[in-house]
Amino acid sequence: MKEQWKSPAEKELKTLSIESLNWKTTDNISINPLYTDTSIPDNTSFPGIPPYTRGIRATMYTNRPWTIRQYAGFSSAEATNAFYHECLKGGQTALSVAFDLATHRGYDSDHPRVTGDVGKAGVAIDTVEDMKRLFDGIPLDKMSVSMTMNGAVIPIMAFYIVAAEEQGISPQELSGTLQNDILKEFLVRNTFIYPPDASMRIVGDIIAYCAKNLPRFNPISISGYHMHEAGATLAQELAYTLANGLEYVRTALTMGLEIDEFAPRLSFFFGIGMDFFSEVAKLRAARALWCELMSQFKPKNPQSSMLRTHCQTSGVSLTYQDPLNNVIRTTIEAMAAVLGGTQSLHTNSYDEALGLPTSQSSRVARHTQLIIAEETKIPKVIDPLGGSYYVESLTQSLIDKAREYILEIEKMGGMTKAIQLGIPKSQIEEAAAERQIRLDNYEDIIVGVNKYQGDSQPNIDVLEIDTEMVRSQQLERLATIKKQRDQAAVEKCLADLRAAAQGKANLLEVALKAARAGATLGEISFALEDVFGRYQAPVKTLTGVWQRAMINDPNFKELREQIKQFALDRGRQPRILLTKLGQDGHDRGLKVIATAFADAGFDVDLTPLFTTPAEAARQAIENDVHVVGISSLAAGHKTLIPALIDELKKAGADDIKVICGGILPPQDHQYLIDAGVAALFTPGSPLLEVVRKTLGVIL
Amino acid sequence: MKEQWKSPAEKELKTLSIESLNWKTTDNISINPLYTDTSIPDNTSFPGIPPYTRGIRATMYTNRPWTIRQYAGFSSAEATNAFYHECLKGGQTALSVAFDLATHRGYDSDHPRVTGDVGKAGVAIDTVEDMKRLFDGIPLDKMSVSMTMNGAVIPIMAFYIVAAEEQGISPQELSGTLQNDILKEFLVRNTFIYPPDASMRIVGDIIAYCAKNLPRFNPISISGYHMHEAGATLAQELAYTLANGLEYVRTALTMGLEIDEFAPRLSFFFGIGMDFFSEVAKLRAARALWCELMSQFKPKNPQSSMLRTHCQTSGVSLTYQDPLNNVIRTTIEAMAAVLGGTQSLHTNSYDEALGLPTSQSSRVARHTQLIIAEETKIPKVIDPLGGSYYVESLTQSLIDKAREYILEIEKMGGMTKAIQLGIPKSQIEEAAAERQIRLDNYEDIIVGVNKYQGDSQPNIDVLEIDTEMVRSQQLERLATIKKQRDQAAVEKCLADLRAAAQGKANLLEVALKAARAGATLGEISFALEDVFGRYQAPVKTLTGVWQRAMINDPNFKELREQIKQFALDRGRQPRILLTKLGQDGHDRGLKVIATAFADAGFDVDLTPLFTTPAEAARQAIENDVHVVGISSLAAGHKTLIPALIDELKKAGADDIKVICGGILPPQDHQYLIDAGVAALFTPGSPLLEVVRKTLGVIL
Repeated sequence: MKEQWKSPAEKELKTLSIESLNWKTTDNISINPLYTDTSIPDNTSFPGIPPYTRGIRATMYTNRPWTIRQYAGFSSAEATNAFYHECLKGGQTALSVAFDLATHRGYDSDHPRVTGDVGKAGVAIDTVEDMKRLFDGIPLDKMSVSMTMNGAVIPIMAFYIVAAEEQGISPQELSGTLQNDILKEFLVRNTFIYPPDASMRIVGDIIAYCAKNLPRFNPISISGYHMHEAGATLAQELAYTLANGLEYVRTALTMGLEIDEFAPRLSFFFGIGMDFFSEVAKLRAARALWCELMSQFKPKNPQSSMLRTHCQTSGVSLTYQDPLNNVIRTTIEAMAAVLGGTQSLHTNSYDEALGLPTSQSSRVARHTQLIIAEETKIPKVIDPLGGSYYVESLTQSLIDKAREYILEIEKMGGMTKAIQLGIPKSQIEEAAAERQIRLDNYEDIIVGVNKYQGDSQPNIDVLEIDTEMVRSQQLERLATIKKQRDQAAVEKCLADLRAAAQGKANLLEVALKAARAGATLGEISFALEDVFGRYQAPVKTLTGVWQRAMINDPNFKELREQIKQFALDRGRQPRILLTKLGQDGHDRGLKVIATAFADAGFDVDLTPLFTTPAEAARQAIENDVHVVGISSLAAGHKTLIPALIDELKKAGADDIKVICGGILPPQDHQYLIDAGVAALFTPGSPLLEVVRKTLGVIL
Repeated sequence: MKEQWKSPAEKELKTLSIESLNWKTTDNISINPLYTDTSIPDNTSFPGIPPYTRGIRATMYTNRPWTIRQYAGFSSAEATNAFYHECLKGGQTALSVAFDLATHRGYDSDHPRVTGDVGKAGVAIDTVEDMKRLFDGIPLDKMSVSMTMNGAVIPIMAFYIVAAEEQGISPQELSGTLQNDILKEFLVRNTFIYPPDASMRIVGDIIAYCAKNLPRFNPISISGYHMHEAGATLAQELAYTLANGLEYVRTALTMGLEIDEFAPRLSFFFGIGMDFFSEVAKLRAARALWCELMSQFKPKNPQSSMLRTHCQTSGVSLTYQDPLNNVIRTTIEAMAAVLGGTQSLHTNSYDEALGLPTSQSSRVARHTQLIIAEETKIPKVIDPLGGSYYVESLTQSLIDKAREYILEIEKMGGMTKAIQLGIPKSQIEEAAAERQIRLDNYEDIIVGVNKYQGDSQPNIDVLEIDTEMVRSQQLERLATIKKQRDQAAVEKCLADLRAAAQGKANLLEVALKAARAGATLGEISFALEDVFGRYQAPVKTLTGVWQRAMINDPNFKELREQIKQFALDRGRQPRILLTKLGQDGHDRGLKVIATAFADAGFDVDLTPLFTTPAEAARQAIENDVHVVGISSLAAGHKTLIPALIDELKKAGADDIKVICGGILPPQDHQYLIDAGVAALFTPGSPLLEVVRKTLGVIL
């Protein structure tokens, strides 16, 4: 029957063949131009019935819409609380807390390593008192609260439970989600504190504690989102996330829990990018595959095999250029998440490639979901794409592809082993570099960035946080609490915690007592660090990916010649130190750039993650580099970059140039240039341009 | 098999029944919560093969994307030309001309009836010279040009052909579309000039001329868009548009053309609103149904049965409140148009409920299409929703529903008869009133309008046109041309045109000579009017629809009581004159409001369409009304409304209050209030509020 179609198709194509219309996804899945009833896989799936391809609930949104859960937090607990009230009034249906990087990494606001991070890309929480301020006027028995926390999960979860207690609410009544997914931190996001084994024990302790005491709370959100953002392909995101899930299941089983005691409360979190139908298919595939994988544990409760997920539209798909284009992108991504059957959703604000979202941009982001929910009638039919020849076929292809990846991981002995071998991480980094190369070569298009560029700078407001004010307020409060509390009792609790870390007692249970006694986040975290140590990630870069793609490009060749000439003139290769300052661990951009500099002929050094300006300056001087490149994504640029420049000056090394890139609001550019930055790159800058301009700076 | 699904579904629904999840579309089509393989109709359709449900081309966008055709025009021909160049540079792929209302209605810019309309909601074109300026630097043999013109089609088409000739391009090389759909003007849009019979002859002459001389040009674009905008349901839009199409086919056949001589160049135009899957299904249904309908004429060329269509996202779905929400809406609608398989698309700018689009908002509108085309991979698979149980079922339901409507029209003797009976028009008006009532009762939701309202006025720029400047420039140019041309030759041509109108010669052919001789648009148009006369539409209002819905509403009852009291106190009912001033014929809003005033107990008068301020003032005084209500959508408010107030003052009737509503940019509100407007309503105002406030004004 499809034969009949070929003749008109060939006529339209003139000299082209029908096969020329075939293409491949980033996962190397072959896609045909036309899907027909013969291409549809056997599909007898119903929503609410295993393998849940069409949705985990039988009635899906026709009976209950997805949860509108916007991730937000900034400045102080009071400011964030006021913002939450505004969002809830405006139609948001659940909360999701963004903590600042100091909190993530287990530091109180008064720690010298975090001066540039307090209250920046999230809210500063040092104590139970801060947590109470955060939820002031928000009844925690009625509100589902998600907390993106992975490093300092023990003190944060303890503070949350105690804050609820003081609202008169028992742990049994709490509903929500703790991210608590440490494996993906080691894989991509880097917001860990302790080494892998200790970290996994903490995850297990929290799962175990929640299984007994917080029956309505998800103790973990197994997150592919950050892999998505780090550049993973869809099948990679899918496979590594489910493989992480398997690892957590096994950890909990090892601790003696029964599968049905905890598996129903495992939750997931995926990113949703711009490949519309693939993203829809990814969510459908995730459910089917998780159901298949869980069968090996023989659960009796059907909920143990249901993949419940939160989704977030993709941050890296947003552009600095033409910020209103991001409303379009976020709408498309949100549609994909909804058509894929997500349980809850965060939609990004249009200004997030420029800085922190404003009240206005947050409103538009929230309205994106409300409009889909209330105006389009899309929620009124379950899995409306079900049966689509293309979507069903794509779903099956993604299941097959991800299953292959998972089997590879299983063969290595599971995800903890695979992470130690560094294999998934380097696969993701390679995918990220390949994406940038496709953009630089115009094989992938981003409207307004590598095609259809405008000629003016974006002119929109972004949120400005007065970090100094937040920090000094936090310092004052910390001092007050330390004065008022029973110091001996706190010391006793912290000693108990150290003992628990050495032994087998449930860490969250012990930490709860410390929290009630007034111990701070930093104190609880350091007590554990005393026993577990603090993890330093190995510093590795990828090479060769850019070179492979560019080897015949005349511009690349010319650049290599210039660098060769530089080396001849100066007696050594140009040398760059790449760094992220403060507690910001998002290193996708840095890794991609490192590849480019190395492939072009630079000697490339990387600082360890979480470096202070002084440490970076010292390393730059010791390694005698020509230039330092700083990647900044977490709003600390106005503090940390000038500090680094000062350190170089103080050491008489102001011949070392400084360049920077990342999320840099347009209104801060002049400030950075005045502070001594020699070149500045916004997101979307082609690699060739970055390397060439940097070379220009040191010539 | 579906039985298996019922049990978990019932469990989730608790006390609700599964049947409670069924719902009906505005077309009364029943929708179930779940579609499965058993609900899918027999589908053996392939793209490029009749009945074309999956697309008219076998390869669809995989081989050639849809055409990005943004409708634009404002101010002078030079200003519009500069804007076209900017758009084409920015990724637009074809042009679509918006003419000002003076041009639409066959008036030169110097006519006293159009002082407020020149260069406002479109470009002012008086002569061939203006048309040449409009396309300066745009090669008309390479550029597909669409022209939204229905009234003054003869002079505009003549100018276009002559302008091309002067570029050295022959008619055979021209590609594009003339709207030329007069039936829908009588139905909803009101931009007619001559009575129905003469108008249909003109349509026929243009089709016949193009069939012989412009083989690549679509002489007609049969338009459902304006019905959509006037409030038609989807099946109404579909049915009435195809019924209009049948009428044009029969007209051309009557003129002696063979079906395959003209049918392949008939083109269509639909609006795309927010009911996502219904809109996708509507386009699929349109193709299948047109193919079915055309079979009665036994075409031999397969292209005669292919429904090729342009689409535009819905203007009435845009809101004045939270204008950036319109980016979200337009994105969703554009996705539906693309997934439905449109051939070309216009996406609206986010500020169109506030005023005329700016360069910035036009850029975002264009980028909406570019992002879908370049970033989502959606165009890389043909009809990706094909096979979806829901979409296929909905497609069939819309085919069935629209077929019923078409049969009704056929029974009346075709669309010209049905229009004379006023039936489709009143059905559309009723649907529009019902929509407003559902909004007022929160059964339909518009985010930011009747739910999730913000508390601030939108603060965005809209385009301001200096009409006076444009008009005086046009007047000067008209004077120059009239001085330079051979006046006797012009007179001769216009006499020939009058003779042709009385006889049977092809009007476009005769008009071409007049255009070459330098006759103006007004002169050509008036020559035809001398023979055909100018059509005055009957003034009718709908009553009872609002009352039926509100009869038990306590607020409505209270309002009726207040009006009863007013009548007791004053000895007569409150009386309102509703009017549209100038050449703006968009009367959906006015008709809905008229219904509300009448049902609440006002005596309601309407002016004829195309009234001048002086005429409206005279009618207000003669009818002794308490208040005049002006509906404005075409940007003439700053000229026409103060003029009406002045006329009332001059006649000593300034006790008559003036209220207004429509597209009124926020920055003009104070200006209107200062000019004497007593109350002002922006789009989305609930009917109850409008009537109540108006009553307050005259109490």
